[in-house]
Amino acid sequence: MNRYKLLISYDGTSFAGWQVQNNATAIQPLIQRALQTFFRHPIDLTGSGRTDAGVHAMGQVAHFDTEIPFAREKLLLSLNALLPPTIRTRHVIPVAPDFHARYKAKSKIYHYHLHLDPILDPFSRLYAYHVGVPLDLDRMQKAIPYFLGTHDFTSFANQPHRGTASYDPIRTLYRLECIAQKGGVRLEFQADGFLYKMVRNITGLLLDIGWGRCLAEAIPDILNARDRKKAGTSAPPHGLFLMEVLYD
Amino acid sequence: MNRYKLLISYDGTSFAGWQVQNNATAIQPLIQRALQTFFRHPIDLTGSGRTDAGVHAMGQVAHFDTEIPFAREKLLLSLNALLPPTIRTRHVIPVAPDFHARYKAKSKIYHYHLHLDPILDPFSRLYAYHVGVPLDLDRMQKAIPYFLGTHDFTSFANQPHRGTASYDPIRTLYRLECIAQKGGVRLEFQADGFLYKMVRNITGLLLDIGWGRCLAEAIPDILNARDRKKAGTSAPPHGLFLMEVLYD
Repeated sequence: MNRYKLLISYDGTSFAGWQVQNNATAIQPLIQRALQTFFRHPIDLTGSGRTDAGVHAMGQVAHFDTEIPFAREKLLLSLNALLPPTIRTRHVIPVAPDFHARYKAKSKIYHYHLHLDPILDPFSRLYAYHVGVPLDLDRMQKAIPYFLGTHDFTSFANQPHRGTASYDPIRTLYRLECIAQKGGVRLEFQADGFLYKMVRNITGLLLDIGWGRCLAEAIPDILNARDRKKAGTSAPPHGLFLMEVLYD
Repeated sequence: MNRYKLLISYDGTSFAGWQVQNNATAIQPLIQRALQTFFRHPIDLTGSGRTDAGVHAMGQVAHFDTEIPFAREKLLLSLNALLPPTIRTRHVIPVAPDFHARYKAKSKIYHYHLHLDPILDPFSRLYAYHVGVPLDLDRMQKAIPYFLGTHDFTSFANQPHRGTASYDPIRTLYRLECIAQKGGVRLEFQADGFLYKMVRNITGLLLDIGWGRCLAEAIPDILNARDRKKAGTSAPPHGLFLMEVLYD
């Protein structure tokens, strides 16, 4: 068997996420089915991790195995012809047989876009969270260092995986920056991994801080509480982009 | 009566254009109806010109009259609450009673976005024309000067207004530039006015030139022919943005 790494972009607006249990339209099954149509054998497509309903990706990574030789350009053309225009496979490369899109990922980069004009921009409405109420960006900047480094992020994780025996809520946030861009700011997150809804939950608390509903100095206590209920609400999915998954 | 100038943005994807005769959903009637809801009297909303189905605007201008005094911020909030998120009123200012959004316009600026990566970008698919086949941009650049200045643009105008007695196909193109941007280029057009589909038809011929289907040197003959059939096809609507309407 030969293993291949696939680089994927998608506009998550109309999808139920990367992968779902029920019958809603998810992204992973669509790409897996397109691969099966091309290779004419069953394929298991494993992503670097799930993205939620409405979350976008510019650099999702997945892997699959096949023994059938193929021209890489031709595979991408065929997959993109089979897929809706909201999903594009951008790149495919052969990798070592022990490569694993999820387990070998060393870090991930997510961006969260905040649109800060008082009036919504029709062109970014699906790709940025429109915050029409003034935000104190200095307060948000001052809050950022509290999140950096290695922490138990339970207070910023939603339920799903918590029950399992292997559940580990310790993550290292290498980088969190608030960068000005046209119409607002984007938050750039890089960590060795993210718990379920962690980016949206941290963004939600940063917004509460920017709105003066919470003080930056409360963050250590919120982290120590290991209680999701202490950390406010979650930012909506449509501002979030999985930008890059990094491997050795 | 007091006259007001309204600045409007819209994502044209799901609309039948600024104004239509039939029952398809157009932009002008939606804004006019929202104004009538706010002012509680009939309103005539006159735009700077029509945009076609699928064409976007960041700076459409329209005017209307009312005797009722109002707070400008409140009007915008109310209109935007009544309108779908794909249409936003951005600005309203009082103007002289003889201001006219169409007849007093001195020039208009349109941008046409071309996405040139071999693979479509899911995030610009509704806002740029994806040209997956290589284009010779140097050839396009060399063709631009032939369009500048005052010409009879009949060869680059579609039917609608031609039958009327006042039809005048002479326009002055002040500026046409091809500017590199992320993922491709944009064509910036500024003229004293544009004939029906003129930007899309000039863009269509520039693409034919970029693809080597037509020579730049043929443009003077095409203009002189005053025949739409000589000038190739039209570029699709979704790459086109009305950016600005300029007045004295």
